[in-house]
Amino acid sequence: MYIFCTFVGMNYASKYLENAVNEMSQLPGIGKRTALRLVLHLLKQPESQTTALARALVDLKTEIRFCKQCHNISDTDICEICNDTQRNKKIICIVEDVRDVMAIENTSQYKGVYHILGGKISPIDGVGPGDLSITSLVKKVEEGAVDELIFALSSTMEGDTTNFYIYKQIEKYNIKTSTIARGIGVGDELEYADEVTLGRSILHRVPFENSLKVN
Amino acid sequence: MYIFCTFVGMNYASKYLENAVNEMSQLPGIGKRTALRLVLHLLKQPESQTTALARALVDLKTEIRFCKQCHNISDTDICEICNDTQRNKKIICIVEDVRDVMAIENTSQYKGVYHILGGKISPIDGVGPGDLSITSLVKKVEEGAVDELIFALSSTMEGDTTNFYIYKQIEKYNIKTSTIARGIGVGDELEYADEVTLGRSILHRVPFENSLKVN
Ligand SMILES: [Zn+2]
Ligand SMILES: [Zn+2]
Repeated sequence: MYIFCTFVGMNYASKYLENAVNEMSQLPGIGKRTALRLVLHLLKQPESQTTALARALVDLKTEIRFCKQCHNISDTDICEICNDTQRNKKIICIVEDVRDVMAIENTSQYKGVYHILGGKISPIDGVGPGDLSITSLVKKVEEGAVDELIFALSSTMEGDTTNFYIYKQIEKYNIKTSTIARGIGVGDELEYADEVTLGRSILHRVPFENSLKVN
Repeated sequence: MYIFCTFVGMNYASKYLENAVNEMSQLPGIGKRTALRLVLHLLKQPESQTTALARALVDLKTEIRFCKQCHNISDTDICEICNDTQRNKKIICIVEDVRDVMAIENTSQYKGVYHILGGKISPIDGVGPGDLSITSLVKKVEEGAVDELIFALSSTMEGDTTNFYIYKQIEKYNIKTSTIARGIGVGDELEYADEVTLGRSILHRVPFENSLKVN
C-alpha cells in the first residue's frame, strides 16, 4: 500500500523521465519503482546501450515471423525445426508457447516437430479455443500427416482442459497420443515433492531398465 | 545451476528474438529468463507499445539534461526546484541520487534545495571522490552561498565515509551542518522509508557533529 502511495503524484522532474518510466512499467512484473531504477540505470550508461535496446525491440516487432507450419518464432516462413530433414515430421509435440520449445530443444532428446498453441484455454483470462491454433493442428491430423501427438502443456486445470478439448477432436483418427511423463525431477529429493506429483510418479512408474537407458 | 545451464547455447529460433533478449538482459536485475518473458510479452502486444517504449528510451537519453546547479534530472538547464523562488537556496540537502530527491519532495516537508552527488564513495565499486560532484558542492560553500548543509546520504558505511569526506572539506567555513534524524533504520535505503518518517527526520535534523558521536 505504502509503495503505491509514494508514486501517486510523484514528481519525476522531467517529462522524458516520467514517460520512460511509464512505458517501462507497462511490462509485466515491472512496477513503477523497478521501472525508475532501470531507466535511471540507462541514463548512466553510454547512449549506445539505449539505442541498441530500442533498435532491438523495434526490429523484433517488425522483422520476426511465425512459422507457417508450427507457429514457432522464426526469421523465415518455415522455422529451422520444421525445415530440418533429420526430424520426424509425423511426431508432433503440442506446447503452449515458444519458451516450451526452447526448453525441450535444450534437452536434445526430441527429434520430432512442434505445434505451438499460443496459450491454453482459460475462460477466466478470456481465452477460448478460437484464440489458439487448434484448427490447424486438427487439420494436420485429418490430412494423415501425424503418427503421434505428444501433449506437453503444463499440468494445470487449463492445460488439462486444453488437452481434453484437442483430444476429443482427434480421437476418431486413431493416432497415437501421449503426454510427457510427470514425476519427481531428476536430482530432486523425494521428501520435498508434492503429493500429487509423487503419487503420479508411483502410478506411472517405468521399468527400471528404461531409467538406465535414459541416462 | 540448472537455470543457468538451460540458457547456454539456447536456441532462440530467431536472431531478432535473441538480440532483443540480449539487450534487455543488459539491464540490472533482468536475467536472460526474465528478458525472454518480457520480450515475448511485447511480441504479443500491439506494435505501438514497443514503438512507444523504444521512442521513450531514446528520447530519455537525447533530451534529458542535468540541472547545472544541483545536478538533478531536468528538462531545462536549471531544474524546477532550483528555479523555485519560494525555496531557500542557502539550505542545501546533499543526496546520492535523483530518487532521493523524489522521495524527499514527496514528503512536502523540505523548502531548501538539493545537491546530488551521483553516488557515494565506495572503493569496492571503484567510486572515488572524483567520480562524485563534490567539488561543485565545496565551491558553493566556499563562495558563501550556503547557510546550512543537510547530509541525507543513506546510513551505510559508504554513506558515512562520503559524509565525513565532505565534512572535512567544508568544516573550516563554519556553516551549519546537519544530518537527517535517525528515525530511519540504520542501513535502510532512503527511498524505501515511509513519508512520515522521512519527513520528520528532515524536520528534526541534528548537527552533524552529533551524528559522529552517536557512531
Ligand atoms: Zn516450424
Ligand atoms: Zn537544480
